[in-house]
Amino acid sequence: LNVGVIGCGYWGPNLVRSMVETNRCDQIFCCDRSKTALAKVVRRFPCVCPVERMDDMIDRCDAVVVATPVMTHYEIAKTILLRGKAVLVEKPLAISCTQARELMELADANNATLMVGHTFVYSPPVRKVKEYIRTGIVGDIYFVSSSRVNLGIHQKDINVLWDLAPHDLSILLYWLGDNPCRVSAIGRACVGALPDVANIHYYFPSGILANLEISWLAPSKLRRTVVVGSRSMLIYDDTNVTEKVKLYDKGVDLKTPESFGEYQLSYRTGEIVAPNLDGTEPLLLEANHFLDCVETGAQPETDGQMGLDVVLALEAASHSMRSGGRFVEIDYSSAPVPELMLEERRIA
Amino acid sequence: LNVGVIGCGYWGPNLVRSMVETNRCDQIFCCDRSKTALAKVVRRFPCVCPVERMDDMIDRCDAVVVATPVMTHYEIAKTILLRGKAVLVEKPLAISCTQARELMELADANNATLMVGHTFVYSPPVRKVKEYIRTGIVGDIYFVSSSRVNLGIHQKDINVLWDLAPHDLSILLYWLGDNPCRVSAIGRACVGALPDVANIHYYFPSGILANLEISWLAPSKLRRTVVVGSRSMLIYDDTNVTEKVKLYDKGVDLKTPESFGEYQLSYRTGEIVAPNLDGTEPLLLEANHFLDCVETGAQPETDGQMGLDVVLALEAASHSMRSGGRFVEIDYSSAPVPELMLEERRIA
Amino acid sequence: LNVGVIGCGYWGPNLVRSMVETNRCDQIFCCDRSKTALAKVVRRFPCVCPVERMDDMIDRCDAVVVATPVMTHYEIAKTILLRGKAVLVEKPLAISCTQARELMELADANNATLMVGHTFVYSPPVRKVKEYIRTGIVGDIYFVSSSRVNLGIHQKDINVLWDLAPHDLSILLYWLGDNPCRVSAIGRACVGALPDVANIHYYFPSGILANLEISWLAPSKLRRTVVVGSRSMLIYDDTNVTEKVKLYDKGVDLKTPESFGEYQLSYRTGEIVAPNLDGTEPLLLEANHFLDCVETGAQPETDGQMGLDVVLALEAASHSMRSGGRFVEIDYSSAPVPELMLEERRIA
Amino acid sequence: LNVGVIGCGYWGPNLVRSMVETNRCDQIFCCDRSKTALAKVVRRFPCVCPVERMDDMIDRCDAVVVATPVMTHYEIAKTILLRGKAVLVEKPLAISCTQARELMELADANNATLMVGHTFVYSPPVRKVKEYIRTGIVGDIYFVSSSRVNLGIHQKDINVLWDLAPHDLSILLYWLGDNPCRVSAIGRACVGALPDVANIHYYFPSGILANLEISWLAPSKLRRTVVVGSRSMLIYDDTNVTEKVKLYDKGVDLKTPESFGEYQLSYRTGEIVAPNLDGTEPLLLEANHFLDCVETGAQPETDGQMGLDVVLALEAASHSMRSGGRFVEIDYSSAPVPELMLEERRIA
Repeated sequence: LNVGVIGCGYWGPNLVRSMVETNRCDQIFCCDRSKTALAKVVRRFPCVCPVERMDDMIDRCDAVVVATPVMTHYEIAKTILLRGKAVLVEKPLAISCTQARELMELADANNATLMVGHTFVYSPPVRKVKEYIRTGIVGDIYFVSSSRVNLGIHQKDINVLWDLAPHDLSILLYWLGDNPCRVSAIGRACVGALPDVANIHYYFPSGILANLEISWLAPSKLRRTVVVGSRSMLIYDDTNVTEKVKLYDKGVDLKTPESFGEYQLSYRTGEIVAPNLDGTEPLLLEANHFLDCVETGAQPETDGQMGLDVVLALEAASHSMRSGGRFVEIDYSSAPVPELMLEERRIA
Repeated sequence: LNVGVIGCGYWGPNLVRSMVETNRCDQIFCCDRSKTALAKVVRRFPCVCPVERMDDMIDRCDAVVVATPVMTHYEIAKTILLRGKAVLVEKPLAISCTQARELMELADANNATLMVGHTFVYSPPVRKVKEYIRTGIVGDIYFVSSSRVNLGIHQKDINVLWDLAPHDLSILLYWLGDNPCRVSAIGRACVGALPDVANIHYYFPSGILANLEISWLAPSKLRRTVVVGSRSMLIYDDTNVTEKVKLYDKGVDLKTPESFGEYQLSYRTGEIVAPNLDGTEPLLLEANHFLDCVETGAQPETDGQMGLDVVLALEAASHSMRSGGRFVEIDYSSAPVPELMLEERRIA
Repeated sequence: LNVGVIGCGYWGPNLVRSMVETNRCDQIFCCDRSKTALAKVVRRFPCVCPVERMDDMIDRCDAVVVATPVMTHYEIAKTILLRGKAVLVEKPLAISCTQARELMELADANNATLMVGHTFVYSPPVRKVKEYIRTGIVGDIYFVSSSRVNLGIHQKDINVLWDLAPHDLSILLYWLGDNPCRVSAIGRACVGALPDVANIHYYFPSGILANLEISWLAPSKLRRTVVVGSRSMLIYDDTNVTEKVKLYDKGVDLKTPESFGEYQLSYRTGEIVAPNLDGTEPLLLEANHFLDCVETGAQPETDGQMGLDVVLALEAASHSMRSGGRFVEIDYSSAPVPELMLEERRIA
Repeated sequence: LNVGVIGCGYWGPNLVRSMVETNRCDQIFCCDRSKTALAKVVRRFPCVCPVERMDDMIDRCDAVVVATPVMTHYEIAKTILLRGKAVLVEKPLAISCTQARELMELADANNATLMVGHTFVYSPPVRKVKEYIRTGIVGDIYFVSSSRVNLGIHQKDINVLWDLAPHDLSILLYWLGDNPCRVSAIGRACVGALPDVANIHYYFPSGILANLEISWLAPSKLRRTVVVGSRSMLIYDDTNVTEKVKLYDKGVDLKTPESFGEYQLSYRTGEIVAPNLDGTEPLLLEANHFLDCVETGAQPETDGQMGLDVVLALEAASHSMRSGGRFVEIDYSSAPVPELMLEERRIA
């Protein structure tokens, strides 16, 4: 396989590294307008072949990874798909659902693989939680509450919502196997011109609430998601080195009243289990999954549809935040769900 | 001083204990309809005199503490104020702002002390944070984010909002010296009929956002409030035994661009300080403050006005939650601010 | 049952409270030379009958609890046992093994119950660890390492070894079902005249090492014991509110070399489990166990033999510490083990 | 500067990386008997020149880094020093003080720089603690207690003492500016033939006690050192990402008795400060310091003398551990301290 990586700024070199570590690529190309950026990558990975013009590279590749600024995702991915080549686009897939939908259609029309780099979906703790949900250990999910905050780098082209929420959204969609139908979001531009803190409430058709707290301004780093279900509760804390997932055998049960009278609640507190998790780097798992899909033609787990669903949810949250927090319904009508969905995304 | 405590259920005995521990009461009465409850209190505090009928007691007291269910606060406090006696009402002051406002007016008319049991305002960590804010160490506050969650006792007469949010609201009002002007709240009744999880966004006239996450359903207890300001950030974590308050010399500064061009950000990370805090129990500090006010006629820090302000904010949040999260403006027009406010509440 | 508590200083009132909470005593007496101390107890527990002279009380009691300074344990317990009354002596049982042995013999001769207040043996986390060890989950124990440090109160009559090590020793003896045969201890008197920090190494006949770090001088409180076995490892952390015991499915296995060559090690890392633990206060469990033994004549789990074994281990550690850390063999020859030992203490 | 790195096994490649990152080397050579190891290094660092025979390389270098197994340090360092080239030897410097002393003498005789890779001495948290000690904030040090435990890799050629204790010893010697005079150590070979857990007590002439707990067998990783002084206490926890050093304004003061009577203690608890620390990787700081010394001829902070002092302390601990824990005096008589010591090492 010949693989190209377009964009060698902040994140691109990590994708180059992952491709190198798969040991499955015959040739890896990297492409960037900046000669300095290219030289830096080649110094670190001498086996990689630098290319300045994207067009020269695409034809020599079986698959291309796009790690350029969000604004350019659509144009670049379109160019690649039109040539029938597989593409892995960094998250979010595009800056509008119109763009995202067009990319999906192009992938279909050209019979080319379209995958979105929602890396967390491939991370062992996130998959373990999915397993707990799928096997019924968690029961019916009541709500999800997530904090992704840190004194992080203020982006200049996208606000905190488009920067951080794609992570949580891809995790939510993967876990719940469903899309939110309604959103309200508030935010504030504390420093600079773009919102750097935001709170987002997503409603799912099943009644599940999801609350996302995201921020580039926080005294201490949080990467913590709580899932509360009818049978157990769990915490996924990505900053915890040894106990990223903790399952709590805890809950409240409503007893049907024996006589005509008040309901009774019984509280349950059982053991806490931190499962052992595979230590493989999620980015390497993602890279291998992409190469698998390129080779076999299989649909990626984080396919164009998931990429689109995330963009739809982001777009609606943006509208809500701009209007000061009013509710926005998320319209999937013009996003016909393809006949065959991935089994994984159907379950929960 | 003769002091009576009405209501000897879950919380009342703690107030009896605090009054005993002040060592300032000549006689302490306790009153409850349940003889069992009375007997239990007397067994624990043999110096306390049990009374079954409230009316008998009030006349023999200089001050009365009301620790009955919320629904009854108004009627009982009214009775006490009409007799010109000082009253300390448990939080929230009442179940409507109409009731709360009437109690305030009664207190004025009868020249009687009205205090609300917003205990956290008297707790050393909360006061230390106020000091940091007042002295300018925190700078302009951007936002406050708070989590008060636990597998807690599901109340049967009030929902999680009226049960837990009074704590955070009293703290916010005390710290910010201001009232929120707008609120949106969402919640869900996961177990039982009343909402047991909620997320509330308060907007302050100054632009400050406050996000409150409250829940009776959570795998692990959180009592954590983050304040992010322009000069520093802090965490108040009430579950931390030795470092309840941590001040982070951290922030982002916006540099005015020298030339016509992009703004530049500079990140600052300095030392973290956990101040030493007085270990006195907040409830004892509250009890002493109440007795001080009774003796001197001073206005309590958590006076009727604060009690009313909290009820106004709760009521508005309730309206928003019932309507599925739409924005509700908080109307203070019929709540004329008294000419003399406490110096403390004016500063920030 | 009529129960007396002698000594109403720092710890005695807690024992009075426990006895009250058992709800099994007809009459509880308390005895102290200080009228102030007595008055304080009676104010808190009005049902308790104060007595100034010990002798008056003993005859009216079925059982007596001794919570006086360590130096006086022997004389007081002797007086009680000679009258054939059951006695619960605070830890350590006595200040020498000669005294402890004599008390054991007196108990036997007078057919009276002798129990020592090694409370931790009754605490749910300590018992859960015992269960893990007994059922073989931990495998063969390699070593135990414990830290019991805090900026604690400097005692004036006993050093840190006699103050804190009895806790760890009783836990060790209970868990291992065995007594150490050898000890080396070092310490230093940093502030004041008595050693306030110490490190003790105990050797058990089975090869198990136990390292105890104890200190009245430490920046942050530690109550942490690690047990490393051939099949799993565990941490007992008494400062952790929700996860006092954590069992780690972790270890190293030595593979027998297939050919003539080097041994191979395989590392195993599995899940971590924090079991749910009964929340009952250990002191109440201890009080009930004492009353059970008084009523049924059963041998207490923390009987005179365990009390003696702890004193023997303390005495040997004292000798070692005084000599600057040289090894001291612990001689059990003159401590004939009684024919019938508790089943519990035989197992491990 | 031309720099060579001998030994490209587990640790060597990290030293190659550091040398690359200094951007100060004209040419970097790497040398290993294994062609596979060499190829791996070159793949990662294509600018590095691989060499199979050490002798060919040394003459082309100004300075050589030795990262081979401990047993070979002496022979290799000797070869380098005899050719008058600067050498940085990984810790521990040698396996006996005779070897270490000879290397020191060779360095002197050949006027060549000899530095030992005690990396922790260059790490920002360790240097911050040194600053606290030097400036008197800690006061007189009473004791140091350290835990360096983990389910770590069982070495095959050295036991846990020679593997892990060099870290703590170099830190201790740097902080205290003094060498221990006496040691007792115990250990156990739980898995395999070599001791994999050990406890070491070092005594310093000033009365300071240091307790080192080291282990390759532990359920959770600890890298925690506590320093207790007369004026304050501190914790250096290298596993803590954001608060590696915490200074506690805590202590006990002994008041001189006013009258003929008992001493009085007063306890002090003040604020806790976590200083901001430079985030530079210690290994890069070490590499730059080595190159500085090579260029200027300055004496390294972790010079041959410190390397020797660490080996002396290890050797004595080994003797004690082999004898089951008896005390061993550490003899410095044949280790004449050079006339000029580093200012830094004299202070404390």
